[in-house]
Amino acid sequence: MSQNNQKDKKLVTEITAMDEDFAKWYTDIVKKADLIDYSSVKGCMIIRPYGYAIWENIQKILDARFKATGVENVYMPMFIPESLLKKEKDHVEGFAPEVAWVTHGGDEKLTERLCVRPTSETLFCEHYANIIKSYRDLPKVYNQWCSVVRWEKTTRPFLRSREFLWQEGHTMHRTAEEAEARTVQMLNVYADFFEKDLGMPVLRGQKTDKEKFAGAEATYTVEALMHDGKALQGGTSHNFGNGFAKAFNIQFLDNDNQLKYAYETSWGVSTRIIGGIIMTHGDDSGLVLPPSVAPIQVVIIPVQQHKDGVLEAANKLKDTLSAAGIRVKLDDSDQSPGWKFSEYEMKGVPLRIEIGPRDIAENKCVIVRRDNREKSFVNIDNLVEAVNEGLDNLLNALYTKALANRENRTYSAAELDELISIANEKSGYIKAMWCGDLECELKLKEVADVSSRCIPFNEEPIGDTCVCCGRAAKKLVYWGKAY
Amino acid sequence: MSQNNQKDKKLVTEITAMDEDFAKWYTDIVKKADLIDYSSVKGCMIIRPYGYAIWENIQKILDARFKATGVENVYMPMFIPESLLKKEKDHVEGFAPEVAWVTHGGDEKLTERLCVRPTSETLFCEHYANIIKSYRDLPKVYNQWCSVVRWEKTTRPFLRSREFLWQEGHTMHRTAEEAEARTVQMLNVYADFFEKDLGMPVLRGQKTDKEKFAGAEATYTVEALMHDGKALQGGTSHNFGNGFAKAFNIQFLDNDNQLKYAYETSWGVSTRIIGGIIMTHGDDSGLVLPPSVAPIQVVIIPVQQHKDGVLEAANKLKDTLSAAGIRVKLDDSDQSPGWKFSEYEMKGVPLRIEIGPRDIAENKCVIVRRDNREKSFVNIDNLVEAVNEGLDNLLNALYTKALANRENRTYSAAELDELISIANEKSGYIKAMWCGDLECELKLKEVADVSSRCIPFNEEPIGDTCVCCGRAAKKLVYWGKAY
Repeated sequence: MSQNNQKDKKLVTEITAMDEDFAKWYTDIVKKADLIDYSSVKGCMIIRPYGYAIWENIQKILDARFKATGVENVYMPMFIPESLLKKEKDHVEGFAPEVAWVTHGGDEKLTERLCVRPTSETLFCEHYANIIKSYRDLPKVYNQWCSVVRWEKTTRPFLRSREFLWQEGHTMHRTAEEAEARTVQMLNVYADFFEKDLGMPVLRGQKTDKEKFAGAEATYTVEALMHDGKALQGGTSHNFGNGFAKAFNIQFLDNDNQLKYAYETSWGVSTRIIGGIIMTHGDDSGLVLPPSVAPIQVVIIPVQQHKDGVLEAANKLKDTLSAAGIRVKLDDSDQSPGWKFSEYEMKGVPLRIEIGPRDIAENKCVIVRRDNREKSFVNIDNLVEAVNEGLDNLLNALYTKALANRENRTYSAAELDELISIANEKSGYIKAMWCGDLECELKLKEVADVSSRCIPFNEEPIGDTCVCCGRAAKKLVYWGKAY
Repeated sequence: MSQNNQKDKKLVTEITAMDEDFAKWYTDIVKKADLIDYSSVKGCMIIRPYGYAIWENIQKILDARFKATGVENVYMPMFIPESLLKKEKDHVEGFAPEVAWVTHGGDEKLTERLCVRPTSETLFCEHYANIIKSYRDLPKVYNQWCSVVRWEKTTRPFLRSREFLWQEGHTMHRTAEEAEARTVQMLNVYADFFEKDLGMPVLRGQKTDKEKFAGAEATYTVEALMHDGKALQGGTSHNFGNGFAKAFNIQFLDNDNQLKYAYETSWGVSTRIIGGIIMTHGDDSGLVLPPSVAPIQVVIIPVQQHKDGVLEAANKLKDTLSAAGIRVKLDDSDQSPGWKFSEYEMKGVPLRIEIGPRDIAENKCVIVRRDNREKSFVNIDNLVEAVNEGLDNLLNALYTKALANRENRTYSAAELDELISIANEKSGYIKAMWCGDLECELKLKEVADVSSRCIPFNEEPIGDTCVCCGRAAKKLVYWGKAY
C-alpha cells in the first residue's frame, strides 16, 4: 500500500503528529486512547479499563513465563520500618531520598516511621532470614505483583510516576554460580517477552557501576529503542552476591556442615512497559498494539448495518472468532463506520474486519491491518486462519520495523568530537569504547548529554581506546539519551 | 468411616485441638500450613506461596464471575489527599480514625497530608465526575484488586490486619432502581461464590443502620458461620443512593435534557475469605480446602517408591491428571509416606492418591478424601473420572457439614432473658424480632454481648414484638458474636 493511500486514510486528526512534538503526541495518546486519567493525587495516575486490560495481559503472559521457571508468588507488607530500610548501607542511600513516609496511624504518632515500599529487598531478606535454615530450603524463588512508591519530582504517565505497578522477584541461592545463572535466566525471560510477545527488539547487557541498582553487585538490563531514538530501560535483573545476606544474616547449614551466607537476586518490570509499547509501535493515528496484549485483537465493523442480514453475519463472525480464543469486539453502535475506523485505530486494535451486504453476498469479509492498513478479502470459511495469520504478520512487521529503526539509529564513535557531534545531530544509540572509569562516564554526560545504556552481551569491541580519555579500553558501551 | 478409625489415623499432633482453644488452633494452622509469616511490620502479614496461591485462585474465579456481569478492572492511586477524603461527611467520620498518614515525600514535608487508601470511594467518585457527562456514559461498572490499610489496634492473620488485599467494585448508574439491582446482583455473585465454589453456606441480608458502611444508604451482607459458632462477614455490597454523587458533583445530562445526579454502589471481599475457609472447613489435622481454590487438588504419594516401576507409575498418574486440568503434585521426596500423609493433611489437599507395587500389579490406586479419610480403590483407567467425582463429593460434603453446623447453632428467642441465656450458654446465631431502634441494638450488645449480623432476605418473622423493648417489631434479625 502506497504512502499516499495511507495518508488519504488518515482519519484521526485530534492528536499531535509524532514528528512535530513527540512528547505531546505521547501524552495525547495516553489520554485519547483512554489509557489513563489524572486525579488530585499529584504524580500518580488512574489506569483506566483499556490501559489496565493491557497490564492484565502483560501480567498473565509474564506470570506464566515466571512460573514455568519455578517462581512462586507471595505478598509482602507495603510498609518498611525505617530501621529495616537502613540495614543495607548502599540500598538505603539509593532509596531514602525518594520514599514516602508514614508518620501517623489514625491520630497517633508512630514510634517509628514507616516508608511505603520503593522496592522490597529488605522485607524479603528479613523473611528469608526467618525461613532459610538448611541447604534443603534453597533455592527460594519468590515474586510479587504490587505497587511501589518513589517520590519523583517530574512525572509522566507510565514512564515515571510516584506510584507504579510492577513485579519484583527476589530469590535466594546456595551458590554464587546459581544466583548468577538465575539473574541471566530472568533477563532472558524479559528479553523473550519483549521480542516474541511485544515485537520490541532489545539489547541485553550489563549496567555500569554508576547505573546499577543500589546494593547490587551487577545489574543486567534489557534496553529498547523508542521511535524517537531515546532508549527505555525495559527490565532489570540484579545479582546481589551475598551482601544483603550478610546484612540480614541469611545463613544456611550446607551439606558439608558449614554455615554459609546465601546468594540473592532480584528482577523487575513495571507498567513502564506500556509506555514502551506506545513509543515503539504507535503512529500518527494512535496506538498500535501487539496482539498478545491487545484488549481487543479484532474489531468487527458492520457496513450498512441496518440492511437485512448484516448484523446477523457480523455476529456470526464474532462468535466464530471468539470460539477460537480470539479477543473480538463487534461495534454495532449508531456511530458511522468512519468514526469507528478512527476510534479503533486510535486504540491500536490490530485487525479490523469490515462486513457489508456485498461481502455477505460473496461469503467474504475485509480484513484491515492496523499497522499498514493493508486490506485483504477473505472467504468467511477461512476466517480464523486468516485472522491468526494477520495477527502473526502484524507482530512480525512491528518487530521488523522497530529493529530497522534501531539499526538506522545506531551510530559508532571512536573519538570524543565524533561522539559529541553525533549526540548533537542525531538521536539514537552511540556505540563507543570505554575505559571503565566513572570520570569518563560523567564527562560524556556533561559534554554530550548521554548516559551509558549498557555494556552489551556478546558484541565485539569496536576499538581499543576509550572514546573519552584515549586510554586502553576493553568495554564496548551503548550510550544514549533515555526515558 | 467410623469416628474411631478417624482418630487412629490422626497423624498431625503439633497443632492445638479445636475444642481446646479455637483461637490457638487457628493461629497454629496459618503458621504450620505455611500460609503466612510475621515480619517486623506490626499488624501486617507476609502471605507465603501456599497462602497466596489460594488468593490467586479466589481472584481468578471471582474476577471471571465479575467480568461475566460486565465489570471492568482499573487501578486508582493508593493515596488520598486529606481534602478529598473529607468531601463526604459520613465517610470521613467512619474512616479518619483508622487511616495511615503520609506526611513526608523524601526529605520534604508535604503541603497536604495523604492517607493510604482505607477504601477508594472518594477516588472513584472524583474520576467518575471527570468522565461521566451523559446518560450514554452510564452505567460504569469498575473494580480494582489492590491492598488497603486500616490502622487496627488488634490484628489476626487474614481476619483483621492493618494492610489487607481485597477487591473493591464501584459503579455508577442512571437510576436508583438500576443501582439497587446492581447492589443485589453483586451480593448474589458473592453468595454463589461462597456456596458453590467454597462450600460455605451464607445468610444473605441487610445490615442495620448501625452496622452499615460509612456513607451508604443500605449495606447488604453475606454472613458465614464458623465452626466455633461465631459469624464472619464474608462480603458486603452497598447502595449509596446519590449521596456521594451530590458531594462529588457527578451529574449527567439525561435523554430528557435534565442534569441529574448518578447513583452509586460499591462492593468488596478480601483475604478474610481465607480465614473463613480455615474456620469453616478445617479440623484437628489442619486445613481442609475446597477444590476450587486448593493450590494442590490432588497429591500423589508413592509407597515403596524405590521399588521398580513405582515412580514411573506415579508419574503416569500425575501426567494423566495434569492433562485433565487438575492441579496435581507428586511428592517423590525422601520423607516417609507417613510424614507425607500428615504434611498434606495439614495443608488441606482435598485428595491423596497412594500407589505402591501391589496397586500397580492390579492396575489400581487408592484415593483418600481429606475431609473424612474415606478410601476408595480405583481402576487406573478410570482415574480422571474418579478424581473429579471425589472432588465433587468432597465439596458437597463440606457444604453439608457446614450447613448442619449452622442449623445446629441457630437459636430463636422471643424474650430478652431467653436471648441472654442462649448468648451465655451457646455459640451461634440467635434469631429474634427487633423494633428497629438503635437503643435496643446497643442494649443487646451490652447485656448479651451480641451484635446484629443481618436482617435476612426472604425469611418470615418469628413474632411481632421486639425481643428487647417489647414494642411492635417487624424486623427479624440474626444476632451473634462475630470475627
